[in-house]
Amino acid sequence: VTLTHGWQDAVTVVLVAPRNPLNIGAAARAMSNFGFLRLRVVNAYDVAYAEAKSAVNASAVLDASEQFASVAEATADCTLVVGTTAVGHRHLQHSLRRLEYGGRAIREHVAGGGRVAVLFGSEKFGLGNEDMARCHWLMRIPTRSEHESMNLGQAVAVALYELVRREDAEVAAPAPVRGARAEDVDRVADLLLEALHLSGYVKDLTAESSALKVRRLVARMGLSDADAGVWLGILRQMLWRLRGID
Amino acid sequence: VTLTHGWQDAVTVVLVAPRNPLNIGAAARAMSNFGFLRLRVVNAYDVAYAEAKSAVNASAVLDASEQFASVAEATADCTLVVGTTAVGHRHLQHSLRRLEYGGRAIREHVAGGGRVAVLFGSEKFGLGNEDMARCHWLMRIPTRSEHESMNLGQAVAVALYELVRREDAEVAAPAPVRGARAEDVDRVADLLLEALHLSGYVKDLTAESSALKVRRLVARMGLSDADAGVWLGILRQMLWRLRGID
Repeated sequence: VTLTHGWQDAVTVVLVAPRNPLNIGAAARAMSNFGFLRLRVVNAYDVAYAEAKSAVNASAVLDASEQFASVAEATADCTLVVGTTAVGHRHLQHSLRRLEYGGRAIREHVAGGGRVAVLFGSEKFGLGNEDMARCHWLMRIPTRSEHESMNLGQAVAVALYELVRREDAEVAAPAPVRGARAEDVDRVADLLLEALHLSGYVKDLTAESSALKVRRLVARMGLSDADAGVWLGILRQMLWRLRGID
Repeated sequence: VTLTHGWQDAVTVVLVAPRNPLNIGAAARAMSNFGFLRLRVVNAYDVAYAEAKSAVNASAVLDASEQFASVAEATADCTLVVGTTAVGHRHLQHSLRRLEYGGRAIREHVAGGGRVAVLFGSEKFGLGNEDMARCHWLMRIPTRSEHESMNLGQAVAVALYELVRREDAEVAAPAPVRGARAEDVDRVADLLLEALHLSGYVKDLTAESSALKVRRLVARMGLSDADAGVWLGILRQMLWRLRGID
């Protein structure tokens, strides 16, 4: 799925009946971390919402958040409504998808020009049956059955991370480090072998097996260009001292 | 990568110098959610650690956690030490991998029989240079540059989710719903067409275009076996009323 810049604008996070100001603030912070800036709050405990908004570290997301009296109003302009639940086994009347699969479906819906609401229920009870009935389907974070229920702020963070994670990054190499040229690797091995001889570690310099062992040992270091230079300096200094002792 | 049951035992989460008991508790909760039960705490603010442990909802993970005086001691039995950082652009002396890539590397290391420590720094300063120097490489959660720094508990939740997420679940279909047989879909369309005629919505029953439109309309419903039965019942009831009125 290819998404244009700013696609997160097509996703609205809806917190339904949140009770704890710290969780409201944490949800907003995770949204900001991952670039989702549209927060709607339904039927919040007023004191909690006010307290979250007035916190010294309240995010711009929270400042711009909107309050609604019902899930119907908060999702009116969305073309896909997705509920989240911690429940894995209990019988649900609804189609239930693992987060990995649901995340892909949400990205595809946005790529097709749709607007998506992702609902999170209250800390204690999750989403109610009436709210779930408004959802096209439900999504479950794959927690273990012995401890299913996640903290609200953490659930929001994990769900949004799944939306922004890049499949290609999973196999992409990290920022490339320029590898050492073979002649520099050879020189490191030569100097190391000489140092080992001078220090008495290698008894018989003519023993071909020792030379090969050292060469393989150095090859396994997987030296970068920069580190090869560092090692050459180290070995030259050691050799200078070793020759002096000799 | 194929991992046997309980592979999470090979992963230790190390919190370095955490300061907020709520964050320590949240980290432990996310660990429990995702099945990671080994928590080690280095150089914690003693009051915070004690307060987190004594919280009424403290998890078994926190109860079983161990305290260490240094990162060296906390990671002594691990064969791969991975640091986490929010820093994306600042010059780091270290190889930096996105979480998606790092997560795969960690799973591969565990599959090969290794033991991994994942380090999280303090809320305010992250990992120090000395701690980072003990890491084989660093891992970054892909937050946006305008708001890089994540809450500690949320960062732990997201990192561990990446470790347990299943690539195959991304394309796997949700729990299968038995689709309606074509003959039942046909019958729904037949009854709907009749109801539309009786109610005056379709003026000319012989108009083939109306029949086709209705058939396509019903086809697009993608009826499940169960829902086809419900619709047949609804339409039969409506027809019974409409015929009585007629």
